[in-house]
Amino acid sequence: MTYLETLGMEAKKAAAVLSLLKASEKNTALLAMADAVLAFQDDIMVANQIDLENGKENGLTEALLDRLALTEKRIQGMVSGLKQIASLEDPTLKTDRQWINNNQLRISRRRVPLGVIGIIYESRPNVTVDATALCLKAGNAVILRGGKEALNSNQAILAALQKGLATTNVPQTAVQLITDPTRELASQFMRLNQYVDCLIPRGGAGLIQAVLNQATIPIIETGVGNCHLYVHEAADFKMARRILDNGKLQRPSVCNALENLVIDRAIAKEFLEESLQGLIEAGVAIMGDESVLEFVPQAELATDLDYATEFLDNKIAIKVVDNYAEAIAHIEKYSTGHSEAIITQDYSIAQNFLNDIDAACVYVNASTRFSDGEVFGFGGEIGISTQKLHARGPLGLEALTSYKYVIEGDGQIRE
Amino acid sequence: MTYLETLGMEAKKAAAVLSLLKASEKNTALLAMADAVLAFQDDIMVANQIDLENGKENGLTEALLDRLALTEKRIQGMVSGLKQIASLEDPTLKTDRQWINNNQLRISRRRVPLGVIGIIYESRPNVTVDATALCLKAGNAVILRGGKEALNSNQAILAALQKGLATTNVPQTAVQLITDPTRELASQFMRLNQYVDCLIPRGGAGLIQAVLNQATIPIIETGVGNCHLYVHEAADFKMARRILDNGKLQRPSVCNALENLVIDRAIAKEFLEESLQGLIEAGVAIMGDESVLEFVPQAELATDLDYATEFLDNKIAIKVVDNYAEAIAHIEKYSTGHSEAIITQDYSIAQNFLNDIDAACVYVNASTRFSDGEVFGFGGEIGISTQKLHARGPLGLEALTSYKYVIEGDGQIRE
Repeated sequence: MTYLETLGMEAKKAAAVLSLLKASEKNTALLAMADAVLAFQDDIMVANQIDLENGKENGLTEALLDRLALTEKRIQGMVSGLKQIASLEDPTLKTDRQWINNNQLRISRRRVPLGVIGIIYESRPNVTVDATALCLKAGNAVILRGGKEALNSNQAILAALQKGLATTNVPQTAVQLITDPTRELASQFMRLNQYVDCLIPRGGAGLIQAVLNQATIPIIETGVGNCHLYVHEAADFKMARRILDNGKLQRPSVCNALENLVIDRAIAKEFLEESLQGLIEAGVAIMGDESVLEFVPQAELATDLDYATEFLDNKIAIKVVDNYAEAIAHIEKYSTGHSEAIITQDYSIAQNFLNDIDAACVYVNASTRFSDGEVFGFGGEIGISTQKLHARGPLGLEALTSYKYVIEGDGQIRE
Repeated sequence: MTYLETLGMEAKKAAAVLSLLKASEKNTALLAMADAVLAFQDDIMVANQIDLENGKENGLTEALLDRLALTEKRIQGMVSGLKQIASLEDPTLKTDRQWINNNQLRISRRRVPLGVIGIIYESRPNVTVDATALCLKAGNAVILRGGKEALNSNQAILAALQKGLATTNVPQTAVQLITDPTRELASQFMRLNQYVDCLIPRGGAGLIQAVLNQATIPIIETGVGNCHLYVHEAADFKMARRILDNGKLQRPSVCNALENLVIDRAIAKEFLEESLQGLIEAGVAIMGDESVLEFVPQAELATDLDYATEFLDNKIAIKVVDNYAEAIAHIEKYSTGHSEAIITQDYSIAQNFLNDIDAACVYVNASTRFSDGEVFGFGGEIGISTQKLHARGPLGLEALTSYKYVIEGDGQIRE
């Protein structure tokens, strides 16, 4: 039995135990893990320091080092995350449908945990805690594979989490970490479908693509958001500007940030001349088509690739369109199906946009930045799905469950 | 652009049209296809005759030839299937959740079609019609890849379906067939995730495994059912025998048929001596462990492989266990997560079984043969899912939909 098969087997055993625990037992385990993270804070910080020093030596960018770095505040964030998730409703305590069929069988659809969940992620060590908390709360065992640059941090966090579990009814093997950081092992992990029920990659487009190409485990594709704001000719300009600034400036590095502005020709000159100052002053590079170049002297010509790119940076690609149909066609062409928004006061156009756009989250007169499990009221999220199978958009606890049909009879046979 | 990319692109365009059609427009199209299948019945029969002759020349088994053969009655079955599906409720006409979040955003979860669905199947030409009907009803375009031995039949059926669509608002490209029957093209098809939202393989274990290994399109794994009947010591013997006979004899070639009997040692001798006569007389081969051999002279020793095999044939593998825990362990070891049943009059044991067994359908005192979308009341089914993501168990129209979040605001930005 290989290293990974052993992990898988242990996870499967732990999942079987977890699936039968009471909500209170899982919550006790989450709170014990919170205490343990706090108790072992020093060990975690020391390990993180090693990762940071290695990272500097290996020439990681400032942005990557920032994601990797743990502070007292970030550790406090992990602790409160665990407590918050302990306070949420157990998503498996539900029979969401029940009926009697023509054969007088009582059929119930009962929510159950998925089983074993695999998470493949990059440099943020807080994912180690957040993902574990959500998976365990929903009754799942989890196998984590973090980035190799965070390996020491992740091992220290895992040690704390497992020590927390030691005194609870949740087996320590409910959370396991792949400590061999090679790509070879990551690839093998993606094909461990005999043991793992669901694989969730969390990271950039490169990671997602690698998982998509190699995995035999059913995956939930998360994350890539090439989001558009369409300012329709009947838009409230002030509202449009506020939402544009919010989408582009508030946190440009996240998947629900704006990457593109689409605008009707009838209002393009006026709106662009008035409304791009905020972005330009904040250092946002403006790329656009010929019309944009005409109205905005600072703009550079946008290529097809610019329109297709999730910048996650201080850049925006702008397209001037002749009408609603052209706007929809442009968005559909470049959308990654994450979050798309229209600003308009025209009721019918708003309804059409909601119908026409094929994306996880479609907005009228609000910022795409709201695409988030916490904001939606799910109490937390494991990512934002850009696929259509299983769960789409922000993934809360329910997305970490499946169901089974329970059929009760008194001797019925099929005629 | 390759042949498959062209099909994919056309399907995507058709799906965009379909997603905006009214239920009545889709129903009109389904009825028009029903009329067309009837009108072109002769062409379909001629084409089928060619497939059958080729099949005989190529040495197909009788069972395969039977699956391949179309009769007037089978064509009538396709026609009534189309009409039946036209009469079902449109699964996309639903907003299944709606709430106001803390930011006063109105968030609605609206059911939408999946988009483009790929179906890979084997020799039954009726799948061409049934799968198309279900996909279109749920607003999806479909790309079909049937077995090469049924190619002429499938092409004739496709021609009829497309002629039916010609006078309706559903584009003819809403249903397309891959006419190049090579494996190479099937492999490429499985990786067409840019155009296809969901892939459903329908067929034997070999096909499912091939799809699992190669696909980049999210798949719904269907079908393999190594189903168990556990006769508990507190079982009603008469009921147990009736359900055993039903599960093994009524239609052994289908995935919800029984393959295994698990029985408590305390009642094994009495039950086996009394109850296997029906199976033995019907020509069912009995395989079992040492204890079974003792009680049933006709039995042969079962290997590990026998317990793991979905026979789909006149064979049953029997295991005598010391107690409930051993029964559960045996079932969990060999279960494919399809349908598992217990026969018992012990209330607590029944409840434990429903909790402990991890399968799509878990039965107490009823035949596993009921695992079926039609029987469950879904009006039809596209298969039975043995995975936990998206949809599990019998897949009705709802399993062919996804959802999108529609968010309506009046200028909200994220603080």
